[in-house]
Amino acid sequence: MSKKVAVFRKESFNAAHRLFNPDWDDARNEKVFGKCALPNYHGHNYDLIVKVVGKPDRQTGYVMDMKVLSDLIKAEVLERLDHRNLNMDVPEFKDLNPTAENIAVVIYKILRPLIDEKLDMQVRLYETPRNFVEYPVD
Amino acid sequence: MSKKVAVFRKESFNAAHRLFNPDWDDARNEKVFGKCALPNYHGHNYDLIVKVVGKPDRQTGYVMDMKVLSDLIKAEVLERLDHRNLNMDVPEFKDLNPTAENIAVVIYKILRPLIDEKLDMQVRLYETPRNFVEYPVD
Amino acid sequence: MSKKVAVFRKESFNAAHRLFNPDWDDARNEKVFGKCALPNYHGHNYDLIVKVVGKPDRQTGYVMDMKVLSDLIKAEVLERLDHRNLNMDVPEFKDLNPTAENIAVVIYKILRPLIDEKLDMQVRLYETPRNFVEYPVD
Amino acid sequence: MSKKVAVFRKESFNAAHRLFNPDWDDARNEKVFGKCALPNYHGHNYDLIVKVVGKPDRQTGYVMDMKVLSDLIKAEVLERLDHRNLNMDVPEFKDLNPTAENIAVVIYKILRPLIDEKLDMQVRLYETPRNFVEYPVD
Amino acid sequence: MSKKVAVFRKESFNAAHRLFNPDWDDARNEKVFGKCALPNYHGHNYDLIVKVVGKPDRQTGYVMDMKVLSDLIKAEVLERLDHRNLNMDVPEFKDLNPTAENIAVVIYKILRPLIDEKLDMQVRLYETPRNFVEYPVD
Amino acid sequence: MSKKVAVFRKESFNAAHRLFNPDWDDARNEKVFGKCALPNYHGHNYDLIVKVVGKPDRQTGYVMDMKVLSDLIKAEVLERLDHRNLNMDVPEFKDLNPTAENIAVVIYKILRPLIDEKLDMQVRLYETPRNFVEYPVD
Repeated sequence: MSKKVAVFRKESFNAAHRLFNPDWDDARNEKVFGKCALPNYHGHNYDLIVKVVGKPDRQTGYVMDMKVLSDLIKAEVLERLDHRNLNMDVPEFKDLNPTAENIAVVIYKILRPLIDEKLDMQVRLYETPRNFVEYPVD
Repeated sequence: MSKKVAVFRKESFNAAHRLFNPDWDDARNEKVFGKCALPNYHGHNYDLIVKVVGKPDRQTGYVMDMKVLSDLIKAEVLERLDHRNLNMDVPEFKDLNPTAENIAVVIYKILRPLIDEKLDMQVRLYETPRNFVEYPVD
Repeated sequence: MSKKVAVFRKESFNAAHRLFNPDWDDARNEKVFGKCALPNYHGHNYDLIVKVVGKPDRQTGYVMDMKVLSDLIKAEVLERLDHRNLNMDVPEFKDLNPTAENIAVVIYKILRPLIDEKLDMQVRLYETPRNFVEYPVD
Repeated sequence: MSKKVAVFRKESFNAAHRLFNPDWDDARNEKVFGKCALPNYHGHNYDLIVKVVGKPDRQTGYVMDMKVLSDLIKAEVLERLDHRNLNMDVPEFKDLNPTAENIAVVIYKILRPLIDEKLDMQVRLYETPRNFVEYPVD
Repeated sequence: MSKKVAVFRKESFNAAHRLFNPDWDDARNEKVFGKCALPNYHGHNYDLIVKVVGKPDRQTGYVMDMKVLSDLIKAEVLERLDHRNLNMDVPEFKDLNPTAENIAVVIYKILRPLIDEKLDMQVRLYETPRNFVEYPVD
Repeated sequence: MSKKVAVFRKESFNAAHRLFNPDWDDARNEKVFGKCALPNYHGHNYDLIVKVVGKPDRQTGYVMDMKVLSDLIKAEVLERLDHRNLNMDVPEFKDLNPTAENIAVVIYKILRPLIDEKLDMQVRLYETPRNFVEYPVD
């Protein structure tokens, strides 16, 4: 077998956040971000799906061991984000608004260097079952 | 038709919270509540299912109009809890730990007086797809 | 083993319906039933869960063979309701408004005589993932 | 950040339809479309996911405000299709069979001109949890 | 607060099984159990929901710490059943057909002595999303 | 209409399997495959989604009749894999480890010759809700 297969691993974390731009006043933040800008934070059960693409290994039949991928996501992403306040506790969001788009990019930047560079990678992040994002897009 | 039917309406809200007992020190709070006691809050997509039981009306075929129930939940529960910090923004949790159990009881107490007393009522609250509660229990 | 177990089987059907009371004029129907009263029908993917309660048979370990229950639901309920217009095609709704409550009662009345009277039975019907009903209720 | 992110918003609507080709007789329609050709319509809970692709705005962190996208879908798509009979009530299906494929194309044509042309767009439509379509495909 | 609340914890395991009665010949087993009697086993992703009912503790707001319940299910149930062949590897099914009904009863018997006797307990087990059981029933 | 639409059909099957490389000893198999290498098999509820891409037919509005695709998947894939032991009962896995990756490739090779070559095809296979694969990619 020589063609590529995509494998996906889903993990979950629960975090608080609020959306706002510190360069704007409260009125403008509320106008743009609505209830998401409320000052005391709200939160979500985020579902994270990491996609890894490559050729299955002949000896294992695995593109990548999903247990290894799961452990990596837990150690590197969930350990930093789960049960945290994204704005207050996570350095990457010190000057970056924690929208779903930006969280997905941050997670990608954390994981990408830790996965074999021969393998392609993509992140899908569900903020709610009705709002989700993917990064990167070709 | 004279027998009772149960009707259920599901709504959702997103909120931040932390679990802790103000009478305890940080070490004991962390021992009991683990990551849920972290000081800067985390959050959830809560799914709320309200069950109402009674005899369907002969003219409408409704136990209770689900649109009316939905509007009631939105006006009385979601307006107070959605995109809020349960500990900081919701008076009922000023001295009450916002566990799923206690949130369900609070929601029940808000809605029960607003629904026809001939109808029975129960609340189911999902904190995550793997953790949920029901109140009251017979 | 002598205690009772509940077994559940889920099936699905797709049907059209509208809600209205023929004794009322259009204005009152629209006021009570809103968009559900629109004259040309709308429709749903109904999910039906039939619950059967009894003692497992010693030789099979079954309360009731779920394959038998599934076949019964398909033959007696889905054959009549699936891909139908509930108001126009189903005699039970000739003079009965096809609310979720009434559909659940109709399905119960169809199935109850066909299942061993030693077994208790209950119907849960999802009209949408956010609106559902159960019949009967103790 | 300069790379593209995809954002997705899910909405739902309930509609009636039937599948048939008016150039064919009943026998051929029944042969090709089976129960979907039954004359009095059936219906579905359609789930619609709209995907929008672009670079996140530096000031908001949004590719597109999901609230704006949600409002747009509700105003332009759900207002026309929700609780309607697709064959009878929706002009686009006067001479077009309302298969999931064609409904997805119609929804795309409604929304595409209303979304910034710098952003790519795709529609996914679930007719049932087991039957769904995407348009366009690269 | 003095009224009872029900709390639910969901866990999952993957197991192989086959259904048959060793007192019957192959023909009768195939007649009764169909494909479930095939000799080389098949399998399922079982979803297990454990319900515990009691009064929330005044100091914690918990009926029972869901983390403790989760750890208990993992240690006592998943450790024995997950990634196992129920017929071959699990002593309880040496002479007991591993139907969903019987698996639920076995899980209940494992967990019941380990949970405070002041608390009521019930098990729900999904063999598939369309076949599930509950034990005990009042 | 001249552009391509993707249609998707989801089916399910239940199978037993174990993961191991016959060229390795037990210790190495356990090290690499963990509990998945346990000798007496475990199992899964596999969800299979087959994607077919092409231009909708002008007369039917179908890319491919989903009923035909469903029947094809049932006759050619489920008939071979459902309620089977993948290692013991399915010739394709005699010398091929039944990882999700390899199962997806085997299903693709079964179905590809049976579907019009003008239509593109892809397989997505869920081993659990948290582990899934797609083949081919790009």
